[in-house]
Amino acid sequence: MDNKLSKATLGRIPLYLSYVKSLPTSEVIISSTSMSKALGLGEVQVRKDLGQVAKSGKPKVGYKVTELIDSFESLIGFKEKTKAVIVGTGKLGRALMDYEGFAGFGVEIVAGFDAEVSTVKTIGKVKVYPMSDLNKVIKETDATIGIITVPKTEAQAVADKLVEAGIKAIWNFAQVKLNLPENVLLVQENLALSLAHLRTKIIKNDKK
Amino acid sequence: MDNKLSKATLGRIPLYLSYVKSLPTSEVIISSTSMSKALGLGEVQVRKDLGQVAKSGKPKVGYKVTELIDSFESLIGFKEKTKAVIVGTGKLGRALMDYEGFAGFGVEIVAGFDAEVSTVKTIGKVKVYPMSDLNKVIKETDATIGIITVPKTEAQAVADKLVEAGIKAIWNFAQVKLNLPENVLLVQENLALSLAHLRTKIIKNDKK
Repeated sequence: MDNKLSKATLGRIPLYLSYVKSLPTSEVIISSTSMSKALGLGEVQVRKDLGQVAKSGKPKVGYKVTELIDSFESLIGFKEKTKAVIVGTGKLGRALMDYEGFAGFGVEIVAGFDAEVSTVKTIGKVKVYPMSDLNKVIKETDATIGIITVPKTEAQAVADKLVEAGIKAIWNFAQVKLNLPENVLLVQENLALSLAHLRTKIIKNDKK
Repeated sequence: MDNKLSKATLGRIPLYLSYVKSLPTSEVIISSTSMSKALGLGEVQVRKDLGQVAKSGKPKVGYKVTELIDSFESLIGFKEKTKAVIVGTGKLGRALMDYEGFAGFGVEIVAGFDAEVSTVKTIGKVKVYPMSDLNKVIKETDATIGIITVPKTEAQAVADKLVEAGIKAIWNFAQVKLNLPENVLLVQENLALSLAHLRTKIIKNDKK
């Protein structure tokens, strides 16, 4: 099983999972052809996705349904959730705390932190702590992902604190390049890029 | 010039632009080698990026600085902004209205709409209108992009209204598949995918 799944493949896994789970128990083998037909996806795409995900099985012969369910569930963290904390509970931080899509991908936001919070309070379903509790709460909750939604001037200092507390990966929404130790993973988010991309497509369409 | 730029290339253009603008006017030609050194980026990457973007010039001989500036500026809409509206001014909608990164990529959010707004009000720097004004405001502002940040149960109805008002592209944050006419572009946002991706990377690292 390849762990270098593309985001696009990963994005289709919840769909595959709910489909194979909906199959009658009499179907023990499923082919990529019948899955692609049932889901209205391209056959090549489904075959490629399953090829990356499945431990055994062949596109035309088929895949064991129980094995597929196991692989899908482990990939999207269906059984074992990964815990994340958010630092910065302004508009963006709060929007992420409320975001409905995370649970379906095995990630749970277990705590928030904010420099302007002095006593613990609950926002939505998430407890928000003062920054001074960061180390303690990250250790207690076993959180491995830190999400940074503070202004860019604060982001490096926050990243340093998250690293010190033992976080393994950072998802950075601040528009600033973070310096991190090599063993800490980083995803730099730039929401503007989706818009910029759409913009170039519109211009291209207009030129047709 | 290729309009099929990857998001990653597009993301580096503001960096390239500010660099070539900072050059003394005596430098009329710049090579990809010296740009990659100055910016601390891989040489292959810079060469590929410039190859896609530049109208003329060769990696080793160099590119005309004025031509590069023109290409970069047109790609990220430095001179001509693309206008966008946001429908749904909950936490996520408001966070996007405040997001600092859009302007650098030639996109301006010109209006917001919300089903719960009955008279025009200003949130941050953006005017928010009742849904009944959607058609009129989109036509008056010449907006071409509609950003959907309403709950998923409302998203299709909102998309239909945006299409009716003449929007050319939709950036959908609601976790629902939209049915759109073929001539309307769609970017489906799934913030959870970044997290899911980080999660699989963490697991992979742990197995090392």
